[in-house]
Amino acid sequence: MRDGSRVMANFEAPDPTFADKARDGFSRMPFMSTIGANLTSVEPGRCEISLPFADAITQQHGFFHGGVVGTIADTAAGFASFSLMPVGSAVLTVEFKLNLVAPSQGDALVARAEVLRPGRTLIVAQTYVYARQGEKETLSAIALGTFMCLAGKLDAQVTAVEKSA
Amino acid sequence: MRDGSRVMANFEAPDPTFADKARDGFSRMPFMSTIGANLTSVEPGRCEISLPFADAITQQHGFFHGGVVGTIADTAAGFASFSLMPVGSAVLTVEFKLNLVAPSQGDALVARAEVLRPGRTLIVAQTYVYARQGEKETLSAIALGTFMCLAGKLDAQVTAVEKSA
Amino acid sequence: MRDGSRVMANFEAPDPTFADKARDGFSRMPFMSTIGANLTSVEPGRCEISLPFADAITQQHGFFHGGVVGTIADTAAGFASFSLMPVGSAVLTVEFKLNLVAPSQGDALVARAEVLRPGRTLIVAQTYVYARQGEKETLSAIALGTFMCLAGKLDAQVTAVEKSA
Amino acid sequence: MRDGSRVMANFEAPDPTFADKARDGFSRMPFMSTIGANLTSVEPGRCEISLPFADAITQQHGFFHGGVVGTIADTAAGFASFSLMPVGSAVLTVEFKLNLVAPSQGDALVARAEVLRPGRTLIVAQTYVYARQGEKETLSAIALGTFMCLAGKLDAQVTAVEKSA
Repeated sequence: MRDGSRVMANFEAPDPTFADKARDGFSRMPFMSTIGANLTSVEPGRCEISLPFADAITQQHGFFHGGVVGTIADTAAGFASFSLMPVGSAVLTVEFKLNLVAPSQGDALVARAEVLRPGRTLIVAQTYVYARQGEKETLSAIALGTFMCLAGKLDAQVTAVEKSA
Repeated sequence: MRDGSRVMANFEAPDPTFADKARDGFSRMPFMSTIGANLTSVEPGRCEISLPFADAITQQHGFFHGGVVGTIADTAAGFASFSLMPVGSAVLTVEFKLNLVAPSQGDALVARAEVLRPGRTLIVAQTYVYARQGEKETLSAIALGTFMCLAGKLDAQVTAVEKSA
Repeated sequence: MRDGSRVMANFEAPDPTFADKARDGFSRMPFMSTIGANLTSVEPGRCEISLPFADAITQQHGFFHGGVVGTIADTAAGFASFSLMPVGSAVLTVEFKLNLVAPSQGDALVARAEVLRPGRTLIVAQTYVYARQGEKETLSAIALGTFMCLAGKLDAQVTAVEKSA
Repeated sequence: MRDGSRVMANFEAPDPTFADKARDGFSRMPFMSTIGANLTSVEPGRCEISLPFADAITQQHGFFHGGVVGTIADTAAGFASFSLMPVGSAVLTVEFKLNLVAPSQGDALVARAEVLRPGRTLIVAQTYVYARQGEKETLSAIALGTFMCLAGKLDAQVTAVEKSA
């Protein structure tokens, strides 16, 4: 039986400045700084976001709240998708699903996203979120989502486009 | 054709103090106050959470970040599920799916969750999230999730239980 | 608290012949006759499919196989979505999620789908699947999915379009 | 950045006869022979199902119907989960999500499932479905699901258990 997980391709980014644009877009999302998330890596078809522990983002048992787990899973998959879009595109989350598989407990969360299917209009990406305690990483959540390319749109036009998509 | 959406039953809460416990649990989730969410209603099998607009919870276009939409959708469904659990139970999110159907733009978000299937171990609940602008509400997102009852556990024991669930 | 499930609108079908086209499309899906499914109703934004019990579609305990539950849930939501598309459109399932909430046991299954968000490109629809035993119906599954409109395409062109979507 | 997809562990099967039991369970699902599916491999935490093309399982454009794609994705993930359960267990699908990423066209479909998180009660597994044309395989769908272990139950008792789960 072949390895079902070996689906990653070596993607090429149509926009050579995708990484700068991704970092810029990330920095202009106030919610990312509110929770303390960092865009630690963005490559063609991949993205990593890390999130240090803080009391402000916990639930009642002192773990990371599931909402922040979903937030960084979604955002990482969105930027992984964005990295494969043509110049001038914007990215929208269509939907995503999150399985929480262990309590999110540790020094930090790390969300690693990769594109599974790079379509022209719709991109499918998945994210694994790990809880890191010292050197040890434990799988905390798995997300699978669909992202839409708003192609050829200046960022300023996105609002109108989003409303009619 | 009958109305497919008419699935709600009149649920009874096994624990008569469920509402106080839900409010207490909500108040002990630091992430809820970080984003400014309010538990506005909890009834047997239902829960409503509202979230006033604030810059700190937006994405790059000034809308509510999808992560906060998911956060209140998940949390509302979790407390709707909790309301039907026996005395001494705790609730865990197993998984949830979120479809974002319109930009989350307005004065506030309102997440309304209801239980669709109250199992002993697993509860299925859905949430509609609306963006409210003045008197007008627009459907912004739909979530469908699975929640687990950790029955007969004191809250202090939840950590250990969660680890082995 | 308002009723979170009251999201259905009265939709209008852009193509007045949508019902004939839906019935025709359904009749040209060999898998529907293989499992014995019937398109019992299609209205603007809604669709109902029924499926009588047969040994050929069961799992090892004599219940309807989860795969047929998913099949009629997906197909009903697809035709509910199709009913709101412009003349000449074809419909594609982008993704769907299915929660199985009770054993699918009875004389028949009935899948009732309705559109929650009618977008130009993407439509979000949900399906409730009931197991019918005599007069009694029990909720068996809930599905939530995303459907894509391939607008202005003759059906014969769909293959090429699907490949590049 | 580490490889986010490298999450597979080497699982051990608690029941040394799991493969025989899986094959036996598969053979007692009439729907599998109705669609012509074969259980081609089952290992600890993994399962592969193949499905040759047949007109009876197509949609209106001559491709495999999405319902059969979901059926084999779900069933493969269910048996991958079953392989890690204790002696005497039965498996239930709690929920699953399916992203259809390309038309399912070819000589056969191959569904390869693997467990991502082996819990005592709940198991999370994912499936990649490929369309095979000659030697070439194209990713057709991705599924992510949750499976429940009904532990210590004889198969004959499953019906009653399922009803109250």
